[in-house]
Amino acid sequence: MLPVATGEFDLIRRYFTGLGGDGDGIDLAVGDDCALLSIPADRQLAVTTDTLVESVHFPANCDPALLARRALRVNLSDLAAMGARPLGFQLALTLPSVDVSWLAAFSLGLAQDASTFQCPLVGGDTTKGPLTLSITLMGTVERNHALRRDGAADGDYLYVTGTPGDAGGGLAIMTSGGERHNQYLLERYWLPTPRLAAGELLAGFASAAIDVSDGLVQDAGHLCHHSGLGCTLVWDQLPLSTPLVDEFGVEQATRWALSAGDDYELCFSVPPGRAAEMELAMAGAGEQVTRIGVMGRGISGVSCVSSDGQPFRLEQAGYAHF
Amino acid sequence: MLPVATGEFDLIRRYFTGLGGDGDGIDLAVGDDCALLSIPADRQLAVTTDTLVESVHFPANCDPALLARRALRVNLSDLAAMGARPLGFQLALTLPSVDVSWLAAFSLGLAQDASTFQCPLVGGDTTKGPLTLSITLMGTVERNHALRRDGAADGDYLYVTGTPGDAGGGLAIMTSGGERHNQYLLERYWLPTPRLAAGELLAGFASAAIDVSDGLVQDAGHLCHHSGLGCTLVWDQLPLSTPLVDEFGVEQATRWALSAGDDYELCFSVPPGRAAEMELAMAGAGEQVTRIGVMGRGISGVSCVSSDGQPFRLEQAGYAHF
Repeated sequence: MLPVATGEFDLIRRYFTGLGGDGDGIDLAVGDDCALLSIPADRQLAVTTDTLVESVHFPANCDPALLARRALRVNLSDLAAMGARPLGFQLALTLPSVDVSWLAAFSLGLAQDASTFQCPLVGGDTTKGPLTLSITLMGTVERNHALRRDGAADGDYLYVTGTPGDAGGGLAIMTSGGERHNQYLLERYWLPTPRLAAGELLAGFASAAIDVSDGLVQDAGHLCHHSGLGCTLVWDQLPLSTPLVDEFGVEQATRWALSAGDDYELCFSVPPGRAAEMELAMAGAGEQVTRIGVMGRGISGVSCVSSDGQPFRLEQAGYAHF
Repeated sequence: MLPVATGEFDLIRRYFTGLGGDGDGIDLAVGDDCALLSIPADRQLAVTTDTLVESVHFPANCDPALLARRALRVNLSDLAAMGARPLGFQLALTLPSVDVSWLAAFSLGLAQDASTFQCPLVGGDTTKGPLTLSITLMGTVERNHALRRDGAADGDYLYVTGTPGDAGGGLAIMTSGGERHNQYLLERYWLPTPRLAAGELLAGFASAAIDVSDGLVQDAGHLCHHSGLGCTLVWDQLPLSTPLVDEFGVEQATRWALSAGDDYELCFSVPPGRAAEMELAMAGAGEQVTRIGVMGRGISGVSCVSSDGQPFRLEQAGYAHF
């Protein structure tokens, strides 16, 4: 008998088996060459990937449970932006070494949110190298009802969920070296709420949608670009949170709402004729949405003006990846 | 109008749009929050992830086209091991900087194999950081016909496709500092052939299957473990290639066939009553398969003996990931 090297396999088995429960449609999870999943015949598979690299997307030595939860939520937000429902995810985890306490905390955090959002781990790969997480998340959406970026029409109203800018405030606090503390804003950075219920509801109303990962102006810009339109974004109608305004003032809050990334709210367009019905449905579901602008054929890119026509000047339109 | 930061988005658009063609079942590819795919009602989705990290899984400054092609093939091999057919893939690419000539070569190599194996790129993420590629590959397999690791029965014959050991020889040449050269062995390392046609055929015959990524002994060991059995592997019946034996001799070739990783051949079990029919089907399809052992209840792990009962001693059973 020859011994089988066990390091990686024991590690995977121990921390990543059964993570997030069974889940409908998961026929075979972690442990074979592939995971096997069933997609209902009346639904399409929706797939998205997000990668987080240490010292690029998150600070060295950050809390592994928060890191895991944030990584999953960031991916779930992409599903929300398509109006899709979570099915399961693959985790590509690159680790500098096998640190059992780190792995225990990481997998516990991941399991917590995988359960909350009914999205079990179905497979992945664990490798040695600089700390990097890449999650590929799968969901399903009713056939031909996905929210794409390219469906907005001239005159459609532009909306945003929640209160953008909070994550920018949270990041500023995190990097302030302990000068400030605000639990609400920190949690808005570390634990963004993927707007899954809003996304599924919107599949019946919205003409186009995107999630705000790189900043509202930049992401609204993608929606404009894909739809072959521009938009006017009314900056003094942005739904700013009280904690953000209290901590940093309206101008800085507005700046972050427009240009800081990491909010993971949904930015979407709705035909005017469906707007009232959509707002009612959202209110009924307890989802905050705010009308912040209008899509237009005559507008170039994203034009930020106040209700009385004053422009807002931004130094940078959003997160630059390179 | 506010400018939208364009670096990453132009880069993705330029090199990764339309890569590998359209593909059946791809409803929406690169460019939205999610890709959208259709899975036929009589098939299951099969998903696998493999990550390659620079200086861990491949040398620094290696040929980007070969790297891309190898990464995709390694993943395709996991689909083959399930008897699945490629559908499309997500690419998580982490790059230290935007090097246009590197990206051009990488995407060209990737497109070449994505076309060859009818497996288009459907989405992904590009991030800044230490060079890492993670591919999540999706395929489909006829419902309840996937080749799992846990189906082998006592007395089933054990087989392997192709000629294992070649990739070990290729790796040795690559790291020999130019002392040796053998194009066949180098290509067997860099461009393993995912045994997709063999896998799909085997879905009608094999009781269990795995692909040989970590070494034949180690991967046969997984098959044993999952099936609750052991196996006898007859080392002097291993199908060694002539170039490998000519270059390194039978003993070293046998050692690599047993314990070097990276071959991406299929190791599988077949009930004795189906063996002749399977061998005929494989021969008809031009797929080389060799019977190399037998699964057994009374055997502990993987027992390597010659036809006349001599044991083979290995220093290491396979690739240790950490």
